[in-house]
Amino acid sequence: MRAIPVLGMGEIKPGDSIADSILAALRRGRRKLVAGDILIVTHKVVSKAEGSVVALDEVRPSRAARLWAQRYGREARVIELALRESRRTVRMKKGVLITETRHGAYGLICANSGVDVSNVDGGKSAALLPKDPDRSAQKLRQAIRRKTGLDIPVIITDSFGRPWRQGLIEAAIGSAGMRVFRDCRGQRDPYGYRLQVTQEAVADALAGMAGLACGKLSRAPACVIRGFAYQRGRGRARDLIRPPAQDLFR
Amino acid sequence: MRAIPVLGMGEIKPGDSIADSILAALRRGRRKLVAGDILIVTHKVVSKAEGSVVALDEVRPSRAARLWAQRYGREARVIELALRESRRTVRMKKGVLITETRHGAYGLICANSGVDVSNVDGGKSAALLPKDPDRSAQKLRQAIRRKTGLDIPVIITDSFGRPWRQGLIEAAIGSAGMRVFRDCRGQRDPYGYRLQVTQEAVADALAGMAGLACGKLSRAPACVIRGFAYQRGRGRARDLIRPPAQDLFR
Repeated sequence: MRAIPVLGMGEIKPGDSIADSILAALRRGRRKLVAGDILIVTHKVVSKAEGSVVALDEVRPSRAARLWAQRYGREARVIELALRESRRTVRMKKGVLITETRHGAYGLICANSGVDVSNVDGGKSAALLPKDPDRSAQKLRQAIRRKTGLDIPVIITDSFGRPWRQGLIEAAIGSAGMRVFRDCRGQRDPYGYRLQVTQEAVADALAGMAGLACGKLSRAPACVIRGFAYQRGRGRARDLIRPPAQDLFR
Repeated sequence: MRAIPVLGMGEIKPGDSIADSILAALRRGRRKLVAGDILIVTHKVVSKAEGSVVALDEVRPSRAARLWAQRYGREARVIELALRESRRTVRMKKGVLITETRHGAYGLICANSGVDVSNVDGGKSAALLPKDPDRSAQKLRQAIRRKTGLDIPVIITDSFGRPWRQGLIEAAIGSAGMRVFRDCRGQRDPYGYRLQVTQEAVADALAGMAGLACGKLSRAPACVIRGFAYQRGRGRARDLIRPPAQDLFR
């Protein structure tokens, strides 16, 4: 199993084809996609292509956002956008804003609704999350298929914090063309024990692997994972979100 | 960057040398460690080698453990062990027991204190977490260095759930010989924006990558990651645990 960062994609502007950009970058690097590859893309380029980028100059933060941001040395306009993009606030404490996003019937739970200024344009604008990341992944998969004839699963990622662990790790927020879980429930381990809860979040682990290979400073917003025996299937990243009924930390 | 599962390690018994077992398995597979490799090992084999395995027959569950286990179709003796291994219960609800383990001044927060029956001996015994996983990693690193002359970082893993995401993912519970974070704070992204919070939990992402490559059914409890430019350093996995003062979900 290998991770191959896609270097030299160049800047993505609203309306650009990410598929073209990735395929051109691969060609320039004398590489190409092969059957069995998985394509991992950070949401930043998807948000840029879809125009989900907001100039901070145009954001008027509410008084609440301003006071809170000031207290903790945060950017009030980012906090304002984060609150606008949220369905509810999960925690707003100690300088950390954790929200549930507006995606679907229940959203992603993450810091600042995924609103982020890094790797956008040097601090003038913030990227929002794509409106429907599973759909964005599906569209990219279809574009790659049209242009190459290959059906390559696509995972769209964002960096997530974790409640009890330090540091960020990439997670899958959109997916198409593969199962997001490897489900071992009911199967027997090598000792004959029937596994009960073992459902592995492979799409998240693939996102993390791409994050390792690409980093934050390399201008490599896409990565090819080669040699992972994924399972074909509908596989939406939305299914990775725990339904509210099973949420023990509301 | 590549992940190479170590196949054919055979069964680990109390007192066995995991280093010998890994090196022998690599030799049989006509592979060897090279400088720059990272070794990822699931804690199950470490717990077995250290004798942190408990026969369920010898566990007398408390009444509370029995009632709760019965209500949710859990194994009372595993719940009993999980409670014994815990410092405090974080949540015990809807059939899920989340605890803080007794490690260090503040422990790992995970399901069942990490007590688990899978990949042990077919259901007769449960593996506990190693007493001091960072120390176990350090000892394995030293043994590998003695036997090969190579200083190979070691990460010990366990499968963790996440509060708002479905599915398990491997996390680093022990580490030696490399920094567990890739710290981008204060550096500028390719657009000139100074990154503020970007500290990547690379040890966790490496754990996840090894989990992808090895799975739960393949009897491959170790994995070599080759080609990742890790940073040397003290790097304890304990530093990945968020200190209680920053915990928003106590």
